[in-house]
Amino acid sequence: MSGTAGQVIRCKAAVAWEAGKPLVIEEVEVAPPQKNEVRLKILFTSLCHTDVYFWEAKGQTPLFPRIFGHEAGGIVESVGEGVTDLQPGDHVLPVFTGECKECPHCHSEESNMCDLLRINTDRGVMINDGQSRFSIKGKPIYHFVGTSTFSEYTVTHVGCVAKINPAAPLDKVCVLSCGISTGFGATVNVAKPKKGQSVAIFGLGAVGLAAAEGARVSGASRIIGVDLNPSRFNEAKKFGVTEFVNPKDYDKPVQQVIADMTNGGVDRSVECTGSVQAMISAFECVHDGWGVAVLVGVPNKDDAFKTHPMNLLNERTLKGTFFGNYKPRSDLPSVVEKYMNKELEVEKFITHTVPFSEINKAFDLMLAGESIRCIIRMDG
Amino acid sequence: MSGTAGQVIRCKAAVAWEAGKPLVIEEVEVAPPQKNEVRLKILFTSLCHTDVYFWEAKGQTPLFPRIFGHEAGGIVESVGEGVTDLQPGDHVLPVFTGECKECPHCHSEESNMCDLLRINTDRGVMINDGQSRFSIKGKPIYHFVGTSTFSEYTVTHVGCVAKINPAAPLDKVCVLSCGISTGFGATVNVAKPKKGQSVAIFGLGAVGLAAAEGARVSGASRIIGVDLNPSRFNEAKKFGVTEFVNPKDYDKPVQQVIADMTNGGVDRSVECTGSVQAMISAFECVHDGWGVAVLVGVPNKDDAFKTHPMNLLNERTLKGTFFGNYKPRSDLPSVVEKYMNKELEVEKFITHTVPFSEINKAFDLMLAGESIRCIIRMDG
Repeated sequence: MSGTAGQVIRCKAAVAWEAGKPLVIEEVEVAPPQKNEVRLKILFTSLCHTDVYFWEAKGQTPLFPRIFGHEAGGIVESVGEGVTDLQPGDHVLPVFTGECKECPHCHSEESNMCDLLRINTDRGVMINDGQSRFSIKGKPIYHFVGTSTFSEYTVTHVGCVAKINPAAPLDKVCVLSCGISTGFGATVNVAKPKKGQSVAIFGLGAVGLAAAEGARVSGASRIIGVDLNPSRFNEAKKFGVTEFVNPKDYDKPVQQVIADMTNGGVDRSVECTGSVQAMISAFECVHDGWGVAVLVGVPNKDDAFKTHPMNLLNERTLKGTFFGNYKPRSDLPSVVEKYMNKELEVEKFITHTVPFSEINKAFDLMLAGESIRCIIRMDG
Repeated sequence: MSGTAGQVIRCKAAVAWEAGKPLVIEEVEVAPPQKNEVRLKILFTSLCHTDVYFWEAKGQTPLFPRIFGHEAGGIVESVGEGVTDLQPGDHVLPVFTGECKECPHCHSEESNMCDLLRINTDRGVMINDGQSRFSIKGKPIYHFVGTSTFSEYTVTHVGCVAKINPAAPLDKVCVLSCGISTGFGATVNVAKPKKGQSVAIFGLGAVGLAAAEGARVSGASRIIGVDLNPSRFNEAKKFGVTEFVNPKDYDKPVQQVIADMTNGGVDRSVECTGSVQAMISAFECVHDGWGVAVLVGVPNKDDAFKTHPMNLLNERTLKGTFFGNYKPRSDLPSVVEKYMNKELEVEKFITHTVPFSEINKAFDLMLAGESIRCIIRMDG
C-alpha cells in the first residue's frame, strides 16, 4: 500500500468554475476511495468533444464547479473496501461508463449498457454515498461521468476502470478510453465489414477516423469519408479513407451520391456526427439485401429518425452502438493489446501534447478544429 | 419426358377477369416452357392475403385478366431449354420470388433479393420474351408473381422453383411456399431468439402465427401476441403464444405495455401487420442493449417509420426481412425437411380445404377472417 492510502490527498486539478470559462488549476482535496471505489493517479489525459460539450453547457442543466476529463491513463494509488480486482500499482484506463458484472446488461453477451454504471452526465457525485470526493476548503467540486481525469488524483467506481497491460505506454493508450474505442468498436464489433467490402463513414472527427481505422483493419476495399469540411480529407487518408464525399458538392442527397458510386449502396456505414439528417443518409446509403448502418453520434433530444419502411423491408439493418459495444472492464484490455500488436495504430490520432498547466490550449485547439487528440501531460 | 412435353396443354384455370369479381374456372391454353422455364402440374394450392390484395386491386395498377395463386405444390411436367436442375417428375414448390444464383444478391450469404427474379407484382408476363404462356382462344391471360398456381398447369422461371423431398405430402407442404416460411424464417433466420428469451409477435394472421411457431421452435420462454382482434388468441395458443395484448385495452402505447410486462422490453419482436404504427411499436418494445426488432409486414407506399434516434443508440437493432430471408431454391427444401422431422408443425395452419371448383369459397373464408390457410385441391 502506498503511504497515501486512507489519507486525503492534496493535488492539482483543473476546475471549471463556470460554463465556457477557462479552467483554473487549483489545489484540491481528494478523499480516499470508499466501498467499491479506487483512487487513481492520472498520468495522461486527453480532451474529447464530450468534455467541451458539457463545459459549454449549452442546452443541458449546468453543474458547476466541476472537474471534467474522461479519457485518461493512470495507476491505482489505493483501493476501497470490497475491491479485489485491482491493487495499487495497476495500470488502468478510467472509463465514462461502467461494468458492474451483475446486472442483466453485464450478463448479456450483446450489451454493454450496465444498469448500475451506465454513463450519467447529470450526476456529479459518487453513487455509493451521493457525495463528491473532491473539495476545495471544504466546498465540494462535482465529478464528471464518474472519471474527472483533469486532476492529478481522482476517485472512480471500480466498475469504471479497465486494468491494462503495464507495458502499454499510457501517453498513447489513454486515448483508447473513449472516442477511439467508440469509433473503432462501432466498425469492428457492430458494422463488422467483411474483407473487401465497402464502408461509408459519416463525420471525420476523431470518432469517425477511428471508425475508418476499424474499416481499414477489417480489410475494407473502399472507405468513403463523408464530411462537410473538405480540409479533413487529407488527414483522413492516413486512416484508410479512399474517397471523399462532401454533401455540399451535390444537388442530390448524399445517399444517392453514394449509391451511384457503389452500384446500389455501400455494404456498411457508420454515422459519427449525431446529425439526424446524416443518420438517415447513413442508413439509406447501404445496399439492400445485406447493408448494415451503425449509428454512433448522439442526436439532439428533439430529433426524429424518419425513413420509408420499405428501406428496412428490403433487408437493410439499422443498429445503434454505445462505446463501440465494448464492455469497459472485460473488453478494453484487448483493445490495448491490438495497439501493442501493431494492429491498431494510435499515434496518428495524437496531433498535439500540452502540459497540464496549459490545459486550456487543448480546448482552444479542439474548438478551432485543429486537433484530433491533444494529450495533456499531468506532470507538466 | 411426358407425352405433353413441347405441346400446348389445355386445362382448367381460375381466371380473374375483373378486380374483386369471383374467379371463373375456364379452359386455358398453357404454352410449353421456353428457355430457363419449367411447366408444372399443380396438385395443391392455397390462398394467401397477397392474392386477395392484388385481386381487389385497391390502390395498385390493375392487371386483368389474370391467373392468381402463388402458394402451391406440384410436379414438373416438362422443362425448357437450358434447364438442368429439374426434370419431369420432380416434386416442387413454386415461389413468388426467385434465385438466379448469379447476381450479387444470390452470391451474398445475407440476401435473398435476387436482382433478376425478385418479386414483381406489376409484371404479368415471362421475363424471357415479355409474353404470357396462358391464353384463351388466342387472348393472353396475365401471370401473377411468376407463379399463377390457380391453374392445373403453369409455367415458371426455373429460378422460382424449389425441388423438394418427393416423400413430402404436397397437400401440406404447399403452404411453405409463401406465408408460413415468411413468418417462420423472420424469427429463426433474422430475429434469432435464444432459448429462454421473450418474443413479441405483432399480428396473429398466418404470417404472425408462423413467426410464433418459429419462436416456439427456438425455445422462447414467453411469446406475446399482439392483435386488435381478441378472437385470435385461442387459436394462437396452438402456435406457442403464451400471452395476449390487445392495444385497444390500454390507454398507454402498446410498446409501454410490453416494456412493463417484461422488465424493460422483450428480447425480440416480429412485426407482421404492415401497419407503420405497429412497426414503430414493435421496434420500441424491444429491450435496450440487445433487443432486435424484425419487420415483415409490407407498408403502404406513403408511410414513414419514425422514432427517436436514442432508441437506436441504446443498442437496439431494427431489420427488415423478405420471405424470411430464405433463398427459394437453396433454402426452401430444408424448411420442408423441418416439417418432415416434425420440428415445424404445418397441419395446424391448414384450417380448411376446398375443391378447385369452389375456389371462391377460399376467398370468402379469408375475407371473413375464418381461415388461416385454405387448401385448394386441383383435382376437385
